[in-house]
This record gives sequence, C-alpha cells and structure tokens, in this order.
Amino acid sequence: MTYVAPVKDMMFAMNELAGLEEIAGLPGNEEVSPDLVEAILDEAGKFASEVLSPINAPGDKQGNTWKDGVVTTADGFKEAYASFCETGWNGMPASTDFGGQGLPVTVSTAVLEMWKSANMSFSLCQMLTLGAVEAIAHHGSDELKSTYLEKMVSGQWTGTMNLTEPQAGSDLAAVRTKADPRGDGSYAITGTKIFITWGEHDMAENIIHLVLARLPDAPPGVKGISLFIAPKYMVNADGSLGERNDLVCASIEHKMGIHASATAVMAFGEKTGAIGYLVGEPNRGLEYMFTMMNHARLNVGLEGVAISERAYQQALGYARERIQGKIIGDKSGDKKPILHHPDVRRMLMDMKSRTEATRALAYYVAGCMDRAKSHPDEAVRKANQSRLELLTPVVKGWCTETAQGVTWNGIQVHGGMGFIEETGACQHMRDARITTIYEGTTAIQANDLIGRKTAKEGGLSMKGLLEEMAQTQAALAAQDNSTLQIIAKGLGNGIVALNDATDWLLKTYDGSPQAAAAGAVPFLKLTGVVAGVWLMGRAALVSAGRVTADDGDFYKAKLVTARYFAEHVVPEAACYRDAILNGSGSVLALEEALF
Amino acid sequence: MTYVAPVKDMMFAMNELAGLEEIAGLPGNEEVSPDLVEAILDEAGKFASEVLSPINAPGDKQGNTWKDGVVTTADGFKEAYASFCETGWNGMPASTDFGGQGLPVTVSTAVLEMWKSANMSFSLCQMLTLGAVEAIAHHGSDELKSTYLEKMVSGQWTGTMNLTEPQAGSDLAAVRTKADPRGDGSYAITGTKIFITWGEHDMAENIIHLVLARLPDAPPGVKGISLFIAPKYMVNADGSLGERNDLVCASIEHKMGIHASATAVMAFGEKTGAIGYLVGEPNRGLEYMFTMMNHARLNVGLEGVAISERAYQQALGYARERIQGKIIGDKSGDKKPILHHPDVRRMLMDMKSRTEATRALAYYVAGCMDRAKSHPDEAVRKANQSRLELLTPVVKGWCTETAQGVTWNGIQVHGGMGFIEETGACQHMRDARITTIYEGTTAIQANDLIGRKTAKEGGLSMKGLLEEMAQTQAALAAQDNSTLQIIAKGLGNGIVALNDATDWLLKTYDGSPQAAAAGAVPFLKLTGVVAGVWLMGRAALVSAGRVTADDGDFYKAKLVTARYFAEHVVPEAACYRDAILNGSGSVLALEEALF
Repeated sequence: MTYVAPVKDMMFAMNELAGLEEIAGLPGNEEVSPDLVEAILDEAGKFASEVLSPINAPGDKQGNTWKDGVVTTADGFKEAYASFCETGWNGMPASTDFGGQGLPVTVSTAVLEMWKSANMSFSLCQMLTLGAVEAIAHHGSDELKSTYLEKMVSGQWTGTMNLTEPQAGSDLAAVRTKADPRGDGSYAITGTKIFITWGEHDMAENIIHLVLARLPDAPPGVKGISLFIAPKYMVNADGSLGERNDLVCASIEHKMGIHASATAVMAFGEKTGAIGYLVGEPNRGLEYMFTMMNHARLNVGLEGVAISERAYQQALGYARERIQGKIIGDKSGDKKPILHHPDVRRMLMDMKSRTEATRALAYYVAGCMDRAKSHPDEAVRKANQSRLELLTPVVKGWCTETAQGVTWNGIQVHGGMGFIEETGACQHMRDARITTIYEGTTAIQANDLIGRKTAKEGGLSMKGLLEEMAQTQAALAAQDNSTLQIIAKGLGNGIVALNDATDWLLKTYDGSPQAAAAGAVPFLKLTGVVAGVWLMGRAALVSAGRVTADDGDFYKAKLVTARYFAEHVVPEAACYRDAILNGSGSVLALEEALF
Repeated sequence: MTYVAPVKDMMFAMNELAGLEEIAGLPGNEEVSPDLVEAILDEAGKFASEVLSPINAPGDKQGNTWKDGVVTTADGFKEAYASFCETGWNGMPASTDFGGQGLPVTVSTAVLEMWKSANMSFSLCQMLTLGAVEAIAHHGSDELKSTYLEKMVSGQWTGTMNLTEPQAGSDLAAVRTKADPRGDGSYAITGTKIFITWGEHDMAENIIHLVLARLPDAPPGVKGISLFIAPKYMVNADGSLGERNDLVCASIEHKMGIHASATAVMAFGEKTGAIGYLVGEPNRGLEYMFTMMNHARLNVGLEGVAISERAYQQALGYARERIQGKIIGDKSGDKKPILHHPDVRRMLMDMKSRTEATRALAYYVAGCMDRAKSHPDEAVRKANQSRLELLTPVVKGWCTETAQGVTWNGIQVHGGMGFIEETGACQHMRDARITTIYEGTTAIQANDLIGRKTAKEGGLSMKGLLEEMAQTQAALAAQDNSTLQIIAKGLGNGIVALNDATDWLLKTYDGSPQAAAAGAVPFLKLTGVVAGVWLMGRAALVSAGRVTADDGDFYKAKLVTARYFAEHVVPEAACYRDAILNGSGSVLALEEALF
C-alpha cells in the first residue's frame, strides 16, 4: 500500500504545537513561511509516495547481498538515492554553510518523518550521513570540513558512525579500537566495529566513517576515546578519490527488520592500518558524540512516529476494504467492511491516537530545539534548552515503545492476512523492533531521564513542565465542552501520577539508586503518556473552536482522537506510578541464582 | 540455546493449582500417579531438549520448500517426526481406544507445552492431527473410525483442518467449498482452502484432511456447512494406500514466523472432485468443529505459555553471561553480567511472572476439563464445565496476548544482539505473533467471553469465580506475612475491577451491544490478569509454608514472582476497567470517513 504523507496533521502539529509562526520569525529563518513549508511538505510527500514507498516492501524482501566485502543494495535503491540527492532532499536539513537549506528543525522533522514512513531502511543512510556532517561541522578542523562536508551534504558521499564493538555496546567505555600516530598527522586505525548502519553499499562513490578509537597513551574508560574520520577511499588534494583505505566490510548482519539497510561488521586496519584523521582534540570523542546525540535520539524517536503512521495507513486501508462477518448491533443487514466492527475500530483509534500523540511530542520538542538555538532572548533559549533536554529521552524512548504496540495492532487488524509477509503489515512491526534498541535502549533513555535530567537537577525541569501542563488542564476544564472536560480529567489524573512519581524519585534517587533504576522505564513511559495527553489536550483546545470551519472534519476527528487518548491511554499513567512507587522491591528481591 | 523443560514449575502447577491428586483419583485415571507423571515429564523433557529443540532455529531459517505441489520439510524434521511417533509421543494424549495413552488433559498439557516450547512449528502437526482425531472419534461412523484413527494416533498418517477460504476467515458462514454426492455414499469436493497448517509435507505417508463444505441443498450460512474427510491418498479396504485423491497443495505461504510448518493453500477437486466422506450428519459441520474448539483453543493458549517460557530461557541465558556496563549502585567494582542491571531484572521478572501466571491458568483450566469429564459427582462435573467454558477464551486470548510482550522483552534484554536473527530471540517473537490470530482472534475470544460466557447467562459463572477469588483473597489477607499481604491487596484490587466491569457488562450488553463489544478485549485481558493473580496468590499461599524445605529455593522464588505480578501486572486491571466503563464512546464516535 502506497504511503501518503499526512500533511494536514503535520502542519497542525507544527503550527499549533511546535509554534511554527514564532519559529519562522527567529533570526536565520527569514525565508520560512507557512506557505513555503506546506509547499515543501507537499513536494516531499510526492517523493515519498512515488519514489521511496514503492521500493520499501521489495527492499525488505530482497535485502542486501554481500560478496567479498562488496555490498549490493536492493533493486531500485541506487536509482532512488541518486534522485534523492539530485532533487536536494539529502542535504535539505543541513546548514546553508555546506550546501544545505538550513531549514528549522521543526520543518525538517516533518520531512524526515516522511522518508522514515515511506522507507525506513532508505532513510537511515541520510540520517547517519547528516549525523556525521554535524560532528565534523561542530568539531572538525577547517581542512576536514572543506574536504568532506559539501559532498556529504549533497549525498555524493555518505557517512557512518562506528561506535559499537562486540564487547562495547551500551558501554562505550569498553571500546578497544586503536589509533596509532603515523607521524604525518594522520593515524593508523585497527579494530573491529559492529552494527554499522549503511557501513558499506553501492549507492555513493565514497563512504566517510567516523570512528571511535583510543590513542596509545589514552587513559582507560570513556575519557580515553577519540573521534576519527576514516574514508573508504582516500581523498586527494583536489578532492578526487585516491586509493582504497585499509578498511573493509567483513560481513553484514541477518536482522529481523530494516533488511534493505546493510548493517555492517567493519574491519579496520587488517593490513597496515586504516588511515584516519583526528576530529577535534584527543580523548574528547565521546563528548563529541554526545553533542550530536540529542538530535540523533530525536530522529530515532521520530522513526517511532513514522512507522506507526505507516502501519496505521496499512491497517486502515485493509479495514476499509475487507468484508467479513456481521457487525454486532447493526440492524441494516448490509455487508460492511471490518472497520465497522467495534474491536477493529478500537484498534484503529488506538493506533491513530498514539501516532498523533507521539507526533505531537516529537514536533513540539523539535520546536524547542529551534527556539533553544535561535531565540533572541537568552531566558527563552535556556528554558527551551532545558525542556529539550528533559524530553529528548522521552521522544526517543516513548515514541519508539509506542510504535511497538501500534505496529503490532497493525497486524492484528488484518487477521490471518496480517501474518503473511506479502500483505506488508509484518515489515512495519519487524522494522519498528530496532527502534527501542539502537541509539541507546529504552532503559538507557530512562536512566538519563531519571538521573541527569530529573533527580540531579532537583526536578526543576520536570516541575516546570508539570506547571505548564496544569495551566493547560485548567484551560480545558474551564471550557463548557464535554469532550474537553473528559480530556481535562485525563490530563489531571496524568499530572497527579507524574507528580507523585517525580516526588518519589527525588526522595529515592540518591539513597536507593537501584530502586530508582528499577522504576526508570515505567517513569519514562509515564512521562510520555502525560506529555502526550497534555499536547493532545492543547490540540483539542485549538480544535474545539474550528469544528464548524470548512475543514472542520479534521478538527472533529482530532477531538475524538484526543478523547480516546484520555480515556484509553492515560489510565496507564496510574499503572506506571504504582509500578514505580511500590514495585522496586519485587524487581530486586530475587537472588540471581533463583531466576 | 537448548530448551530445558521447567518440570518443577509444571509439577507445581499440576499438583497445587490443577489438583493432580484429585484428578489421578478420577475414574479412568487409575494408572496415573504423581511419580508416573514426573517420570513422563522427565522423558518428554529429554525428547524436547535433545530432538526438537536443536532443529528449531535451523527449521526457522530453512523453512519448507514447495515444488509442483510437493512440500519438503526442513532438514531433520522427517527424522524427528519418525522418532516422535516411534516413541509413542504422538498419540500420548489420545484415548486408549485408538492406541493412545488416555492420560488426563492436565498431564498431556504439560507434555504438549514442552513440544510447543522446543519447536512450535513441529508441534503444530501433532496438534492438528489430534484435533482431527477428536472430531472423527466424536462424530465419525465406526467405519471412518476404524479406517483412520489408529494410524493418525500413531502418527503414521497426519491430519488437518480445512476451514478458512479467502472470503471466509473469522466468518465461516461465508464458506463456499461444495460437496456433491457421487451416488456411492461418497462426495466430490471442490473448492479452495487457505491457511491449512501442515496441509502438505513429507513426514508421513498419508494426510487426512477434514474439510468444511456445503451440500447442494444446504441452507445458507452456518447451518448449511457439513464436515468431510478427504484423504490425500485413498485408503483401500485392507488399509493400504490407493490412488492419489484429487486434492493438491497449490502453494505455501511466506509467513512472519512458524516457518518450519507449511501453511498450505489447498485446491480440492480441480479435476473430477476430491473424494470425501461425510462425518456425522449433514449440515452439522460447524457444530462439530465447535465441540473440539474448547480443546483447540486451550492448546493455542498453551502455545502462549510455551513460547513465553522459551523466550525467558533464552533471555535469562544471555543475561547471565553478557557483561556490559557498570551496575548502578554496586560498590563492589566487579564486572557483573547484565542480569544485575535493575531494568534487565525488571524485564526478566516480568517475563518470569507472566509466564508462570499464564501456565498456572492454562493448567488450572486443564484440570477443570478433566473434572468436567470424569468426576463422579454430577454437580462437580457441571461446575467444572461451566468454569472451563468461562475461562477457555481467557486462556486462548490472554496467554497468547501475554506472550507478545514476553517475547518482545526477550529481544530487548539482548540489546542489539536481540535484533540479529542468529541470536534466536527474534524467532520467538515472530512465532508468537500468530497465536493471537489463529483459532479465533483475541476479539473473537473476547466476544465469546462477554456474550455467551457472561452476559447471556447473567454473569453466573463469572460471579461464582469472583466469589472463589474472594476466598483466596481472605486467606491471603489472614496470613501474618508481608508478601502475602501485598498479594492479597493486589488480588483485592483486581476483584473490584473485574466485578465493576462485569456489572457494567451485564447492564450494557443487551441495550448497547456495540459499546459492550468495544470493551470486549480489555474485558478479556482484565479477566486474565485477575485470574492470574488469583492463581499466583494460591501458589504463594502454598509456597509460604515451604520456604524452609529442602527445595525451599523454588518456593522463595515463587513468592517473589507472585509479588511482582501483584505489584506490576495487576495495576493493569484498573486500566482495563476504566477503558471498558468509560471508553466505548471514543471508540465508536468517529465517522468512518474521518479515520
């Protein structure tokens, strides 16, 4: 089923929740207007539907092939990538300094959502490339920048991140890859990296690897890791390609999903050492990675939104067409599609409301990023930076966790056909499965949220957010509108639960770190659900005034969707609260031998 | 990772929750003793570990191949099946009348769980064959019985169920396959059936298809469907095989999981009509299928337990070995396996407690089945029959829904390695995905539970169950033991929620059937969670008195596991209650065009 970009809901989330008008008025965004943004989204939507969506299922089926270090991508990917770069989509989110369009993050977020929905495997290549661009732009020398950035932004060359090693996954302190000075300012890199997304492929003429490695005299642990650039082909002074560097794709993984994106095992320096160049200062590699991590985590959270949207469209399409069984309580006697079965409606409403709530959160946080970067008022910048930091692990953790249930329901709506690969619903569930793992597992996000983002700053950011939520709650409760009242009640319950859990966390974190960590993932999900109903409540407030407009149907639907979220999703908040406050004992009680 | 049967927990569930001692004393079970049962389980466990477990992952990878109507099973399956039949495991649960061992359902449930854990694809062949045996034994003529049953019980021939057609999935009223009298007492069957599990393979010399079809003069809808036997090879009077019947496997499906079990499209009568024999009376086919359905649904529910167990073992094994990261709050400075991370413990406790709770429920209901069949006291038989009928959709629906989250967590525990197919965790999640769909989706189970099993009998069975739960709650609350008090509190909350929802359902079902149906799946899950904590509470009551015994470790673990369930899982009950009582409006409000 062809993906169709939900431009209307994207524009709504940008305009009403992220604050596009304000963002368009920030310094540097002079060229951005709502009309331009909608035109960009329409064009991107076409590209997503016409070019990327059709090769998604075939790419899943065919996957990549590896032979003697060479990876051949699935049919059509090379051509689609060429077209993606030619039309300028690859570099669109990047800075104008290097050939990008310098659009606000809020806008590029909507465009990136489309690539991820249409073809998650394909989209990863751009995501990794732009992550590498960001690292080099922030921390690289002028020489490195001038050598690499423009070609990476245009997509002529792609980029990768080489962090993980077999013994160093979540724990990068265990990185062993070495970088020895070659005496000419460059380094000889030796080591094996695994799980390297788009680590090898045939879509671009060069691949620029960013590699974490240790200098000979580096201190142990995370403070002894440096960041290097190691290109697949050496780059001559005139920018042309030279010899092949001593790095090779040793194999690619056989994964549950994202089959069309090669996940490479990279062997560096099996002969003489892969030639690499230090990015920034020695021993600050991990710190540099962390500066990009906010953005990367938001992007993976956005994958959760995108894959949820795609699964919803797939399920809805089937539910509108498939006729099966009598509709309970229906007196018409007509044969109706399964969309009319109450439980199918329940599943679709669940998928729709969770998708829209996660989109609302991801776009809202993108807006914080734009304001944190460019707002002229320092206090506003600071407030947005603090909100951004608080909610980044929530976007990453909650949006991707949500996508698991949404894509699961996407199969269930199809009944037996859902389990058949050709139907297309399975791929979304299989693709979604990686999103709660890479770029930091949900537990890692949750530990960041409860620790650095909450307990270690005395809960200031979280309490500030709760206060703002309470204002929305009051605004909803003040309306003479039964739907808004229901949402107000849900939001009120959510605020109480999150406040209770925050107070518990602040009391517990220092003295009983294990008890706090036992409740970390429930705390992250609790924050997500309450942030979700807060933003759906804000959306409902806007929508209530527009149901009689020409495009009133959209707002009518939004009100029902927000109400569904308040009635069906928000009750989870009390579960999470209970699990956090009462549940750590039973998590920690069992002796290891008795598992 | 090799599966190891959890014999200790199985024996506990049989002895303490299903009531094995009483069951062993029922007429017909004279040879059954706890010692014998444990000996059977030990032997079965060996077969599962040594023969079925090793071919599970390779079978998933290789799958079946189809060529010109011939299906070749994955390497090792043919040999394993031969050994399975030789050692008598195939017919073990069947009646002694046809060469089975006539063991109580409670005991065969434990043995079947092992096959399902060790190799779900493999186990489906026996499950379908024994389902067909049951149908023929109950409804077939003596001639059909003597022709088919012994060889099916021994496994020399296998059996299938041909129900689904492209337009007739959940809605069997739409079945179109025809059966025309051939004038000699047999029928010519023509039509296409899909999703036929083990519909074609090379493990046995003949395949006996049970087929739903319509006689020429049949009334429309479900009352015009008859049941037929159509063998792959005709059977001569002396029992030897004759000509090939006019039925063929037209293709096999490309599925998300259970790759090693061929799911066939069966074409009947493309030449002259497949020769079939009527089972029982005309037009009663669906009724006959329903008589077997209780058992089939329990067996699929058991798949949920089994695949959860397997995923737990896989994740636990990894968590005990993998060393990664510093353990928060650990002052020892030692490198410890990830089992020590609080969130990994949380996931493993979650997997363990849900697996044990679903096992408790499945075995308890198996015990009801044994008593309903064989108890000398009619009142006891009736009470058990009513409990069995009430809880059958819950076993099917809740145990399989639970397996989704458990197998999902199984991957998450592995981090990045979990997403790599060779690790083995993916297969369990992919295999589990079908269990909430086939043999009636969760929604179909839930509609049965709220309708025929609850509302239509005025809630008598459910209220009886709630009363029994309240007795357990009182017994727990009366103990001077803080763990039992916590479980009592959880159970108490669960009872209130289930009672509220039941009262609401009884008030709502007749007047607002769509509202009731909108809450059906939450109602099923609610019932499952509360039944789960009830049985875990009973388990805890037994265990509290045994923690100082020689095998006290098992009971200590059971207490922690029950407490985890009460603290982390039971809070879900209030969510489901809220969704049921308040949530139908938002499920039903949106106009179809606005989705």
